[in-house]
Amino acid sequence: MNHPQQTSGMPFQKYVPFHEQIPFELPDRTWPTKRIEQAPRWCAVDLRDGNQALIDPMNSERKLRMFQLLVKMGYKEIEVGFPSASQTDYDFCRELIEGGHIPDDVTIQVLTQCRDHLIERTYDAIRGSKQAIVHFYNSTSALQRKVVFGLDQDGIIDIAVQAARLCKKLEETIPDTTIYYEYSPESYTGTELDFAMRICNAVVDVIDPTPDHKIIVNLPATVEMATPNVYADSIEWMIRHLERRESIVVSLHPHNDRGTGVAAAELGYLAGADRIEGCLFGNGERTGNVCLVTLGMNLFSQGIDPQIDFSDIDEVRRTVEYCNQLPVGERHPYGGDLVFTAFSGSHQDAIKKGFEAMAAEAKEKGTSIDDLVWGVPYLPIDPHDLGRSYEAVVRVNSQSGKGGVAYIMKTEHQMDLPRRLQIEFSGVVQRGVDQDGGEVAPAELWSRFQDEYLPDPTRAWGRFELVSVVTDSTVDGASTIEATVRDGSESVTITGTGNGPIAAFVDALSTVEGTPDVRVLDYAEHALSAGGDARAAAYVECAVGDRVLWGVGVDPSIVTASIKAIVSAVNRAERDSVPKA
Amino acid sequence: MNHPQQTSGMPFQKYVPFHEQIPFELPDRTWPTKRIEQAPRWCAVDLRDGNQALIDPMNSERKLRMFQLLVKMGYKEIEVGFPSASQTDYDFCRELIEGGHIPDDVTIQVLTQCRDHLIERTYDAIRGSKQAIVHFYNSTSALQRKVVFGLDQDGIIDIAVQAARLCKKLEETIPDTTIYYEYSPESYTGTELDFAMRICNAVVDVIDPTPDHKIIVNLPATVEMATPNVYADSIEWMIRHLERRESIVVSLHPHNDRGTGVAAAELGYLAGADRIEGCLFGNGERTGNVCLVTLGMNLFSQGIDPQIDFSDIDEVRRTVEYCNQLPVGERHPYGGDLVFTAFSGSHQDAIKKGFEAMAAEAKEKGTSIDDLVWGVPYLPIDPHDLGRSYEAVVRVNSQSGKGGVAYIMKTEHQMDLPRRLQIEFSGVVQRGVDQDGGEVAPAELWSRFQDEYLPDPTRAWGRFELVSVVTDSTVDGASTIEATVRDGSESVTITGTGNGPIAAFVDALSTVEGTPDVRVLDYAEHALSAGGDARAAAYVECAVGDRVLWGVGVDPSIVTASIKAIVSAVNRAERDSVPKA
Repeated sequence: MNHPQQTSGMPFQKYVPFHEQIPFELPDRTWPTKRIEQAPRWCAVDLRDGNQALIDPMNSERKLRMFQLLVKMGYKEIEVGFPSASQTDYDFCRELIEGGHIPDDVTIQVLTQCRDHLIERTYDAIRGSKQAIVHFYNSTSALQRKVVFGLDQDGIIDIAVQAARLCKKLEETIPDTTIYYEYSPESYTGTELDFAMRICNAVVDVIDPTPDHKIIVNLPATVEMATPNVYADSIEWMIRHLERRESIVVSLHPHNDRGTGVAAAELGYLAGADRIEGCLFGNGERTGNVCLVTLGMNLFSQGIDPQIDFSDIDEVRRTVEYCNQLPVGERHPYGGDLVFTAFSGSHQDAIKKGFEAMAAEAKEKGTSIDDLVWGVPYLPIDPHDLGRSYEAVVRVNSQSGKGGVAYIMKTEHQMDLPRRLQIEFSGVVQRGVDQDGGEVAPAELWSRFQDEYLPDPTRAWGRFELVSVVTDSTVDGASTIEATVRDGSESVTITGTGNGPIAAFVDALSTVEGTPDVRVLDYAEHALSAGGDARAAAYVECAVGDRVLWGVGVDPSIVTASIKAIVSAVNRAERDSVPKA
Repeated sequence: MNHPQQTSGMPFQKYVPFHEQIPFELPDRTWPTKRIEQAPRWCAVDLRDGNQALIDPMNSERKLRMFQLLVKMGYKEIEVGFPSASQTDYDFCRELIEGGHIPDDVTIQVLTQCRDHLIERTYDAIRGSKQAIVHFYNSTSALQRKVVFGLDQDGIIDIAVQAARLCKKLEETIPDTTIYYEYSPESYTGTELDFAMRICNAVVDVIDPTPDHKIIVNLPATVEMATPNVYADSIEWMIRHLERRESIVVSLHPHNDRGTGVAAAELGYLAGADRIEGCLFGNGERTGNVCLVTLGMNLFSQGIDPQIDFSDIDEVRRTVEYCNQLPVGERHPYGGDLVFTAFSGSHQDAIKKGFEAMAAEAKEKGTSIDDLVWGVPYLPIDPHDLGRSYEAVVRVNSQSGKGGVAYIMKTEHQMDLPRRLQIEFSGVVQRGVDQDGGEVAPAELWSRFQDEYLPDPTRAWGRFELVSVVTDSTVDGASTIEATVRDGSESVTITGTGNGPIAAFVDALSTVEGTPDVRVLDYAEHALSAGGDARAAAYVECAVGDRVLWGVGVDPSIVTASIKAIVSAVNRAERDSVPKA
């Protein structure tokens, strides 16, 4: 075992280490001794850097949803687009301004290259806004100077300085808008530091900021090229060499090519930066921008106010997934489906004891658990602070090696359960195992699933049962529904409207006395087979009253399956609220 | 814009910063000045830490696939399970040994808690192996000592020391196996450093390692609790305080709760560690273990041999996704679908110029591009080194704001294209746009899709056409197929066998003269509707000869749809190899 690893045979020789590409030294760095003590200024670039990296970029409706989410969470600086390069971005910028969507304390930011006609068009785009950040950039890296621009350092500085001058001039054309500036030496990580310093100082000179009206100097890791401590060193180096530091907001914009974007942001912030640009759940070019959720929640876990509200993380995630049409990974910090689960018995045991110790301490002190210092093994934060819950997942049949719940439901019953439903159903099965004291065979799994989620054809199952349903939908318009349901032993006919049959049914159900509030959180459906017996399965995650749980429906019609799934969720909530006989 | 961020209202007060939980200082740290110059010793824990965090843990067949992948890639230390806690893990360990699956230069590693009967069972599990690492651990954190064990520091040390003594004793019962030891103070990140040092030194004393037969001391970030520089400080602190350093392999085991697991591994390695444990694509408890792919490729990108072969990253990814039944995210470094794409025009332009400059340089020097130092903007490495390719994705219809290719195909045509097919088809559409010089309306999209992927009912399309097919599958057995295909203007009947109808058809096709090699890489299918007109769509990604491309088939039978998809891929490959008229 004397380190018998062999050469990979891969052509590693064609790459030059970063320290040979961009040599610099900072032996007296101070950042490793510092601590983060407050939130940085945040800037969300989901609508620009995030949006430009989507296969299907957001349309106007999805953009507005994203903007409103960011505002609601507490972001005050939001890059809304690259209006001079894209008509959709331009139109959206106008819609925000003319529609009165921008709160007084929120500043929109718009990106532009350093080209005259693009800068002019940018000022047209922001006309009428109370305030705006004009973010101009040009590429400064050694590589791009050589292969893209064919210019020397002075030529590249001239591009930036000319742009800064034009900006100052155009400022006068929209006197009712307070303009702030941001300058990015784009591809900063590939730029020699002394040149990055020179170009930033030259731009700052032209903009002539004051401590009361600062310029933002943004130092992007356009491509992440080294370990994050090297990025932090470079930020500390720059801060020492920037002139007029008191009039500058130093901003970071890390990407994640080496999987260390979050670390680069945190170490760069330790190195003295003031502001961080990123995207929710790390959307963005290639491997993405740094994740604003992770950065904010990392502060929170250290007792620091993130100044952003993450208390309904599932809602944040649903909106982001809707807008980006990209899923958030199962293991994404703070937001993934699996990050507050424990599968191992020893972890589950320790977590249980942690909760018990906190309950005992609260009782002893005559206070609530929420007033204590958090301390539960394997749970770095209390999932409830994000509106989530801890899940102890016991795998069924893991011992027999025949596959688990999700696998069996899919292969034997064609039910492709959404991830969170898999977790919920695992708990249902496990409760059965605890009571019965044994393992669950695949054959039993279906009956447990049916018993929990689906109506029993042989007897009345749950409070409600769907008897018949008629829906009427117009294209681009509202749906109306008329449904007959059994409510206990009675039959009632209810009607409702909504932007789709599910919403219409939820509306109709709300007219029945004593029904808890129902809100649909997530939805999935698929056909059960492609053959003649074509039935569909629908899965809905609902907030029913103050509980979150899943319902399932199966029907030849996908619409009816969805409505049955709502009924299933409501019945489960009602059933659990009644003590068992 | 005077930093108007407001308090989040979230209960951050209930968290104590790390430096108040585990106070220590290391003002004379040396790691930030160091550089990584060679690969660490790797240990892959996919089959233990990764597997234990799956909803559906791997069965024996999936475990063997994972083990063989890890061996093939070049990992020499592989943790294969926790055999004393799980019968499946025990059985798998025996299967590896008795089946002769372990190469001579590979060492298996098995985990056990410090409990007598578990340790004894562990030695039973490894009996007959040439060599093995017995990895024993106990929890040492302040929190777990208090709420889980109710023991003081000496009590916790006693558990570890007793286990070490038992291990030494049991070693004599399997003299034909060379035993190495690994000890983990579990939940190390929540452990006071002086206590972590004491317990490690006590264990090392009992094991009595030598420079020729070292012990592995593993310092896990069981839960990631601080910024990665703090983890690095703690590793440097420990290395200074560990006795008999020359007989110790210091190992890291980062998790990713704060999204900085890769950084923690890299900075901890700078701090003097020798070895890193992790999982491919970062599977593992909660947010996962550190990602071995990212770590390895980060070295590669700096001109350092990772000593692991990532040259067919898609094959690695497919196997990992199959074994874990979890997808690799679109933006995962080096392996995600979107990480070598460029959507922005300026990025695409710079990349194009970068490739041109390299081609010109190669020509001038009379050499190949592969012999030059890599330098293309926005592409930190050459995608070909991973068996991938750069994709310039131009979004269709982005300007009109009506949604892009994937959205329209799904909403208007119910075709839910896999991500890589979306990218491929975007390129197909874009080529049309370039030729015709305009935007593509949704209505045109379908005809372009049909023209590219689906047989034209009005004329012969492509070399092959499926005329009829009969398949015969036995449960758990081989499938046989008899298909009649049009080949050019002739009709031929072909037969084949395989472990499923698709494999059988590929086998049958290989009997036709002049057909290129076909290998199915990825596969997806869905029903097109749940109503009476139940058709299915199948998508296959194939290697046809030396090209990788998608085929699509639509049919009421899902089996026939799949086979049509193969035909589609082969026809596309053949068509492109013939110059257009």
